[in-house]
Amino acid sequence: MSRIAYVDGQYLPHRSAGVHIEDRGYQFADGVYEVLAVVGGHLIDEGPHLARLARSLAELRIVPPMSDAALRIVLREVVARNGVRDGSVYLQITRGAAPRDHAFPRSAEPVLVVTGRRKKPPDPRLAAEGIAVITIPDIRWRRCDIKSVALVANVLGKQRAREAGAFEAWQVDGEGRVTEGTSTNAWIVTADATAVTRQADSAILNGVTRLAVFDIIRREGYRLVERPFTVAEAKAAREAFVTSTAVELLPVVRIDGDPVGSGTPGPLSQTLRAFYLAHTAAAA
Amino acid sequence: MSRIAYVDGQYLPHRSAGVHIEDRGYQFADGVYEVLAVVGGHLIDEGPHLARLARSLAELRIVPPMSDAALRIVLREVVARNGVRDGSVYLQITRGAAPRDHAFPRSAEPVLVVTGRRKKPPDPRLAAEGIAVITIPDIRWRRCDIKSVALVANVLGKQRAREAGAFEAWQVDGEGRVTEGTSTNAWIVTADATAVTRQADSAILNGVTRLAVFDIIRREGYRLVERPFTVAEAKAAREAFVTSTAVELLPVVRIDGDPVGSGTPGPLSQTLRAFYLAHTAAAA
Repeated sequence: MSRIAYVDGQYLPHRSAGVHIEDRGYQFADGVYEVLAVVGGHLIDEGPHLARLARSLAELRIVPPMSDAALRIVLREVVARNGVRDGSVYLQITRGAAPRDHAFPRSAEPVLVVTGRRKKPPDPRLAAEGIAVITIPDIRWRRCDIKSVALVANVLGKQRAREAGAFEAWQVDGEGRVTEGTSTNAWIVTADATAVTRQADSAILNGVTRLAVFDIIRREGYRLVERPFTVAEAKAAREAFVTSTAVELLPVVRIDGDPVGSGTPGPLSQTLRAFYLAHTAAAA
Repeated sequence: MSRIAYVDGQYLPHRSAGVHIEDRGYQFADGVYEVLAVVGGHLIDEGPHLARLARSLAELRIVPPMSDAALRIVLREVVARNGVRDGSVYLQITRGAAPRDHAFPRSAEPVLVVTGRRKKPPDPRLAAEGIAVITIPDIRWRRCDIKSVALVANVLGKQRAREAGAFEAWQVDGEGRVTEGTSTNAWIVTADATAVTRQADSAILNGVTRLAVFDIIRREGYRLVERPFTVAEAKAAREAFVTSTAVELLPVVRIDGDPVGSGTPGPLSQTLRAFYLAHTAAAA
């Protein structure tokens, strides 16, 4: 089965699918994206993803190229045409193609691209053994609440993590407080078993998985606080973990080489992970 | 004459020229660019542009897709095929296309795109009457010395300027000091006729036109200081101006609606502009 991508109104062979060289996504990072998990052929948390997409588009004043109802049809069509049972759907909307000029073009039409990808299940050792993170300065722009494709700083951070033998890099603001990972939200669990993650300010992306874990924590009666935490506090925490659509929930067992808690996945992390997997399985 | 673009080894009709939907420039802003002026069919300051390109690529650890000698040939070919006498050449190099993953791909080949554009001479009123700028917070990433395509903040800033009836937006750092415009470097002239522009730290792009004006200032015996200046100092300055490849040198006559100096183009700005135009004309 060869892959098919949706590109600006057409379903095309993925291999040869392109956007114009003057697409503003390509020349200016003038666009936004979402990644949705597919479990058992079903899109997970589609509503929150589309709500966040609408917010990102509004912040950049890009007109949605189609209604949510139409977009839901395209997403399903990409899932179906690519035979995605378990995997993901990636969608990107840019301001469109126009002669290069920084200010908004007067006549460009926003361009939607959607791709689907079948994925092997993630390496079970990541959840079983936990992951290592490093900490790096957060050098990104000040509107990380917008899910824009201006991700070059995230790319450099993730590469640093990989070269350090870590899974993720936690970015640290000017006050020594963790903002988030390069593609995941950052969490700790304090000595009194409270889950702590930074409030959704303009320094982080308000993760859909982050919000799903909020729902679980509240439903199950655990404690949750939204506030910043420092690297020192994270290293001294009882547990730590990361969340994202792609990695779901993974325990963090080392920060900059120092063990977190016992140096093994913590109990609350494991419990929340199990509940989150149940949440996605229930949708499927 | 229909436009021709160079895309990854081929000369293609501009209209239908594309890059892959998984080009990392499109998905991650993982690429860099340069814009070179063409005057009388000749490329202006090609050496400094290629040197800066090499630096940007090195900072992002993108391997140059070809030698400088080969690139110079491609640039000339694009100029020739598009019949550019006066205008510009745009070049972009990305890390290439690869299945989406933040870290560097193991096997992607960098992709070069070059386009040419004939341009009407800029509106002579801009230089004759001077331009207005507004000031806005600098929300960009911390590595503006790299000429990356992660320009969404610049896009938003330029749009704000346009909607405020201004030509440019000067971005201001956390200490109230001007970094640079969204596509130009920012300058003032102090009461003792010293030209002042921010030092080339990681908060600004080291403009090729900026450096050409440095040469002119030194050669002609004017005074130059590289240091930050505040918005208040700029508003109280004797003169102000901006520089870039695209706009050359334009006097600034209003900042946030307040007149600079006499509210008309200043003498040093006009003199430096004349020398700069002579510099580009000499290359042609």
